[in-house]
Amino acid sequence: LHPRYGLRDSPIAGVVLTGGDVDAIAGLLTLRERHAFTLYATSRVLAVLDANPIFEVLARDLVTRQAVALGRETRLGGLSIELFAVPGKVPLYLEQPGATPPIVEGEETIGVMVSDGRHKLFFIPGCATMTRALAQRLDGADLVFFDGTLFCDDEMVRAGLGPKTGRRMGHISNTGTDGAIAGFAPLNIRRKIFIHINNSNPILLDDSPERAVVEGAGWEVAYDGMEIAL
Amino acid sequence: LHPRYGLRDSPIAGVVLTGGDVDAIAGLLTLRERHAFTLYATSRVLAVLDANPIFEVLARDLVTRQAVALGRETRLGGLSIELFAVPGKVPLYLEQPGATPPIVEGEETIGVMVSDGRHKLFFIPGCATMTRALAQRLDGADLVFFDGTLFCDDEMVRAGLGPKTGRRMGHISNTGTDGAIAGFAPLNIRRKIFIHINNSNPILLDDSPERAVVEGAGWEVAYDGMEIAL
Repeated sequence: LHPRYGLRDSPIAGVVLTGGDVDAIAGLLTLRERHAFTLYATSRVLAVLDANPIFEVLARDLVTRQAVALGRETRLGGLSIELFAVPGKVPLYLEQPGATPPIVEGEETIGVMVSDGRHKLFFIPGCATMTRALAQRLDGADLVFFDGTLFCDDEMVRAGLGPKTGRRMGHISNTGTDGAIAGFAPLNIRRKIFIHINNSNPILLDDSPERAVVEGAGWEVAYDGMEIAL
Repeated sequence: LHPRYGLRDSPIAGVVLTGGDVDAIAGLLTLRERHAFTLYATSRVLAVLDANPIFEVLARDLVTRQAVALGRETRLGGLSIELFAVPGKVPLYLEQPGATPPIVEGEETIGVMVSDGRHKLFFIPGCATMTRALAQRLDGADLVFFDGTLFCDDEMVRAGLGPKTGRRMGHISNTGTDGAIAGFAPLNIRRKIFIHINNSNPILLDDSPERAVVEGAGWEVAYDGMEIAL
């Protein structure tokens, strides 16, 4: 990829954050070479950045931080974006010891819709369960990137990697009667791609039987360097 | 590489930080899977971590933060380490507008020595100039990783990438009468490896004439995934 305008040009005009966790925000630190862009996020996520001076390497005279309300369409160049709540777990600090944390919808777990007026895609790296409202929102999309954390709800427990099920962590699994494959089956979506895949999930291995299961169900598995043309 | 003890074992017993800038500390965020280790740094660098709550993902019940004084030998498993000041630029916020910042030695720019009692290596990602004291310290080492930011002092200016010379940024260049190659020439060091290489430096290209120059002078150029056996 060659820059179009000058040696350090970048086509990145905006970055949309779907959360304030390390895996959602740490990549910003690699965009610090005095390149101008706009950062879109909920005020809750922007507050996380504000609380960490390390993110001041994204100089505020170049990188505008713009708060986006849930459910409000926002223009980003020739695109429109919309952030929306999806089912998720309450944050760790609100969990009650010993109790299974309730599934809620709020600013904690969000997805983003991106549209150029002709095509529509969704990016949903974390989601606890498929609801009727979410299914209606996604139906007819050209592309959905979706929470692919675990293949089976109890795979980390069985592998001895920890005591938590996917459900306990607020992540839908690929399989099972309440899993992603089942939840998406009735929907008309051109491409479905699992992202946010845990290192315990065997779909990461391209010759595994589990990979064959998700591909057989019409899903793709994201990989480093993946490019999409709609 | 297979873990030796359990599925998520790691051989990393300690991490030594040589600075508080993004390129020195952001990698910590990838070590957050509840693996126990000790973090060694000057109190100034530990204060940078303390000021950024994002680093609390390195849970303090597992990751001990240990302040290390300059010039004091510290045990790290079967190794001993020592942090020491090297010539560097004063930090940005202490620069006088318009003036060339003075070269100083303090906690701002540091190197680390690592020894197992038989072999000795040095890791010095930033250094403004070779001094007699530094030459004496490094002479006889088995390995030195050294500041390889720029090939020529004015290469960023000539490429139109910015107004700053290497000297202005506090980085010695590979070449020139006061460069690294010249400064190391009289020293007896088994392996010399350039690290912290700027994306303007043509030694990154393995077929460039500049790469041939540094290799001809007995230097290696670090690359992703490099492994060293002494």
